[in-house]
Amino acid sequence: MTTILIETHKVFEGEQRKYRHYSETLDCDMVFSLFLPKQMDNMLTDLVWWLSGLTCTDDNFSQKGAFQKYASHHQLAVVMPDTSPRGTNVADDENWDLGQGAGFYLNATQEPWAKNYRMYDYLTKELPELVYTLIPNFSGKESIMGHSMGGHGALVIGLKNPERYRSISAFAPILNPSQVPWGKKAFTAYLGSDEKAWAAWDATSLIAETAIAPSILISQGTADAFYEVQLNEEAFLQVADGKKVNYEKLVGYDHSYFTIASFIEEHLQFHKDYLK
Amino acid sequence: MTTILIETHKVFEGEQRKYRHYSETLDCDMVFSLFLPKQMDNMLTDLVWWLSGLTCTDDNFSQKGAFQKYASHHQLAVVMPDTSPRGTNVADDENWDLGQGAGFYLNATQEPWAKNYRMYDYLTKELPELVYTLIPNFSGKESIMGHSMGGHGALVIGLKNPERYRSISAFAPILNPSQVPWGKKAFTAYLGSDEKAWAAWDATSLIAETAIAPSILISQGTADAFYEVQLNEEAFLQVADGKKVNYEKLVGYDHSYFTIASFIEEHLQFHKDYLK
Repeated sequence: MTTILIETHKVFEGEQRKYRHYSETLDCDMVFSLFLPKQMDNMLTDLVWWLSGLTCTDDNFSQKGAFQKYASHHQLAVVMPDTSPRGTNVADDENWDLGQGAGFYLNATQEPWAKNYRMYDYLTKELPELVYTLIPNFSGKESIMGHSMGGHGALVIGLKNPERYRSISAFAPILNPSQVPWGKKAFTAYLGSDEKAWAAWDATSLIAETAIAPSILISQGTADAFYEVQLNEEAFLQVADGKKVNYEKLVGYDHSYFTIASFIEEHLQFHKDYLK
Repeated sequence: MTTILIETHKVFEGEQRKYRHYSETLDCDMVFSLFLPKQMDNMLTDLVWWLSGLTCTDDNFSQKGAFQKYASHHQLAVVMPDTSPRGTNVADDENWDLGQGAGFYLNATQEPWAKNYRMYDYLTKELPELVYTLIPNFSGKESIMGHSMGGHGALVIGLKNPERYRSISAFAPILNPSQVPWGKKAFTAYLGSDEKAWAAWDATSLIAETAIAPSILISQGTADAFYEVQLNEEAFLQVADGKKVNYEKLVGYDHSYFTIASFIEEHLQFHKDYLK
């Protein structure tokens, strides 16, 4: 059970690190990235989780997210897990929207996925215990955010654990996976064709049922090619009535990391407001 | 002679574009990226050239440079050319530090390189004429910057054309290629083994000989693994005496784009000071 630091770069006076470890939950070696801000005197460090989208690894946000300046400023550590279990012994699919790189942040129940595809348990039990030990002066306070499939993940994990995460934010999240092509395909494969099992992993079902939800910020680009078919917000906003949800449309912005980079300052300020 | 817009993304209210065109100078199809800031009332747009390092394309800086916020703020267009001619009909080498991705921003005289490897002419004659037409309200004012091999390129192009570029900046530039392994290998291949031909493409020789040099800012990370062997500054600073050169060491920073992202605000502010 060793955790190995395999890369580190100084950035905005903090450190962008990459670690490898063996995950018991996923039964494979995993890599994750961790940004640690420069330790400022007498300040505790809060933790923000970033969950990436389909096909991504821990690298996409660390390299293209342009978040380090603001995480340094707000004394935030940011952890970037991978998007699925990985390796030659891990089940996979030839398509990019299923299998490795497309874990959907759930616990699979169907073969051949059930053995390794337990990203929910990994992200809520095993990885936090490890990450907490890597943050000097950790405040114990956490928020969660993500993009696309990772926005779905952030909402599902945050809504299932409202006492743990102070706030949730998402760029272009899959808000209602049970009803859209990406989600139907993944849920059928990982959870089976009985749709009753899907509701536990669908942000729209979860926010309708929960009594308490963390504050939520969602940013959606209007020029996002996936917006209408995969990312529609209507059902979610209808049942989210009464919860603290700020849904903003970004006119002319698309599904890329250029959008994330443009608005990451706003998202980290949102989280800091709830973490402090 | 058509120029095709193949990609565009809104970012920080501006546009990150990618174009393809046929270059007569290089005798192959080329791709370049161009950031255009949001047009502000009554403001002219200045142009900054970014030249990337070995193995890079136009994508590295556009995706990892985190420059768009500051370029938007200062009303700067930024053009990102590729690092060499490309294509199956273009000479190449099996090593990453020669051939495609490693053009060294010069005009080659030796076979098999002389036909296509004319990056200096491409960047100072053909591409500017094209780029000027793509910038609304262009001021006619230009500066140039780059990283590593691209820092060498920015210094060489800037020092050969001091009337054209208002300022030059570089991250971790190859300051004296005639004396270091990367440069010796490339210059021998592209220019031949007679070292007299090398001086015209070496920033240290050029700054020693020029009467007038644009203002220069150079940032070098002290944790850069290439620093001692490839990027040493001593000879350059010795002969640069009397020119406006600000050479700064960045303690703990390495050769990666994390360093560039951390200090790009300072570099663009430096250029804006000379462009306005």
